[in-house]
Amino acid sequence: MKAVVFDGEFRLVHDYPMPEPGPDEALIRPRLIGICNTDLEIGRGYAAFRGVPGHEFVGVVAEAKDADLVGRRVVGEINISCGECPTCRAGRPTHCPYRTVLGIHGHDGAMAEYLRLPVRNLHLVPENVPDEAAVFVEPLAAACQILDQVHVQPTDRVIVIGDGKLGLLIARVLALTGCDLLVVGHHRENLDILAARGIATRIGSEGLGPDADLVVECTGRAGGFEEARRLVRPRGTLVLKSTYVGQPTVNLSALVVDEITVVGSRCGPFPAALRLLKQQLVDVLPLIEAEYPLDEALAALEHAARRGARKVLLRVD
Amino acid sequence: MKAVVFDGEFRLVHDYPMPEPGPDEALIRPRLIGICNTDLEIGRGYAAFRGVPGHEFVGVVAEAKDADLVGRRVVGEINISCGECPTCRAGRPTHCPYRTVLGIHGHDGAMAEYLRLPVRNLHLVPENVPDEAAVFVEPLAAACQILDQVHVQPTDRVIVIGDGKLGLLIARVLALTGCDLLVVGHHRENLDILAARGIATRIGSEGLGPDADLVVECTGRAGGFEEARRLVRPRGTLVLKSTYVGQPTVNLSALVVDEITVVGSRCGPFPAALRLLKQQLVDVLPLIEAEYPLDEALAALEHAARRGARKVLLRVD
Repeated sequence: MKAVVFDGEFRLVHDYPMPEPGPDEALIRPRLIGICNTDLEIGRGYAAFRGVPGHEFVGVVAEAKDADLVGRRVVGEINISCGECPTCRAGRPTHCPYRTVLGIHGHDGAMAEYLRLPVRNLHLVPENVPDEAAVFVEPLAAACQILDQVHVQPTDRVIVIGDGKLGLLIARVLALTGCDLLVVGHHRENLDILAARGIATRIGSEGLGPDADLVVECTGRAGGFEEARRLVRPRGTLVLKSTYVGQPTVNLSALVVDEITVVGSRCGPFPAALRLLKQQLVDVLPLIEAEYPLDEALAALEHAARRGARKVLLRVD
Repeated sequence: MKAVVFDGEFRLVHDYPMPEPGPDEALIRPRLIGICNTDLEIGRGYAAFRGVPGHEFVGVVAEAKDADLVGRRVVGEINISCGECPTCRAGRPTHCPYRTVLGIHGHDGAMAEYLRLPVRNLHLVPENVPDEAAVFVEPLAAACQILDQVHVQPTDRVIVIGDGKLGLLIARVLALTGCDLLVVGHHRENLDILAARGIATRIGSEGLGPDADLVVECTGRAGGFEEARRLVRPRGTLVLKSTYVGQPTVNLSALVVDEITVVGSRCGPFPAALRLLKQQLVDVLPLIEAEYPLDEALAALEHAARRGARKVLLRVD
């Protein structure tokens, strides 16, 4: 089958072996695949991944033990957990130490004509949610995860640092709380998508004081931490969403003195993301920047790597 | 008056000017002063402090507008806040941006024959609490602060990294929750004080897995963060208590992937610490390593700087 493969560089191959689903797995043909910053970081060596990248997709079940599932439109959770270890049994399957992760760690991903996933990872897509919205479920769930971890109050002053792919989704989700939200970015055309929805935006954080109750760092850059840190008030909360190659130096003593809480945040609840889409509370379509056929995946990856690029999609016909 | 002064090095001077209390302040004659790691870090340049160090004390009020206060035995909160700014009015006076801090920032400290503090910073010491226990109220309050910030459950597995002055107090306070506590240190004689109370202890963290719900880092060293990080489970909490000169590199992406919460923790509630002492729930006397007269303050500071030294006190006769 056709697949994008990363083996030190991204390549498009035409004779990649078909996935062989296990007894509890389904074979899925993706229709649309989203390109995430993590895919681009994999290209820089993140997670030392080798294989087919891609973890954002909407597709149709091609094979499954349960015949009712075949032909249904699905999205899929990306952590493939053992289900039996203490971490899984404690209700934290996304942190299973034996997990593989679709297109990120030990499990071929979605940038191909077919992928396999355990049936329990799949979620049916409501009829009124088009493919172009459903392909955002995974990053939208990651945005919802912030609200699962931190109690964001309607009276909170919240700043999102970063107006890239994930930042725009996070801003839309946080705005649902009614909080006093400001999004700081560097790309006017991206910020304007939020401004059109009545969300306050700003180019650069210069001159802003340390008065935010909550700051969400989703710049994708190591330097984003220090910028976010400058904006959070004492006893405030700093949510980290960026993963990248590289380790910044951090003034941990200052975190102690100001009693800052730093919360690492990763994958989130698919059902909540699907509800937001079904209820049309988050309009993701303006976040799409371009769509390429799978055959042009390398050009799509290059496009997605442009500074400020919004979501670039791959289509499998 | 006699005072210890730091002006690039610690010196004992005999002609330091007497403090001049403002209208809302009391003049206090300390009886006992505790030496804290922060005092030692000030000697290494921390907080760029110049003046009289010392922020842990128990003393007697020598002068105050309220005559009833004169002669009473008191301890004192160390943050001198404005009381009027938005941060103070929001109930976070210890983070007042206009604050000075006793013996740490802009306000002469307790290593002297007299000090001054606002009356509202003072707390009367219950009769059944001896001076040798009352001098621990400030660091004991800092230990209580962890419980103010983090909900420690009796079912939690908790690890304290560091068996120094603060680590021993933190261990005693956390043990009150009934949690499954392990203290990791490097000084058998310090750990034995805890072991005598039935608290589990261990030399070094080699071989321990990442399974703690909560890890408290109070090693006082930049390297403590990475050690603590290795022990906390995914979605666990890491409380930072150490302040020091220097900034370690931190794998922030790993905090995101494991969804770790990092909580900076500093000064705590004096009334809670006084209640614990009054009820004799925390026995601090075994934590005293030595006592020196103020005249021998330089020798005391040297002693306190020895690796693994417990609490060294200064006495003002």
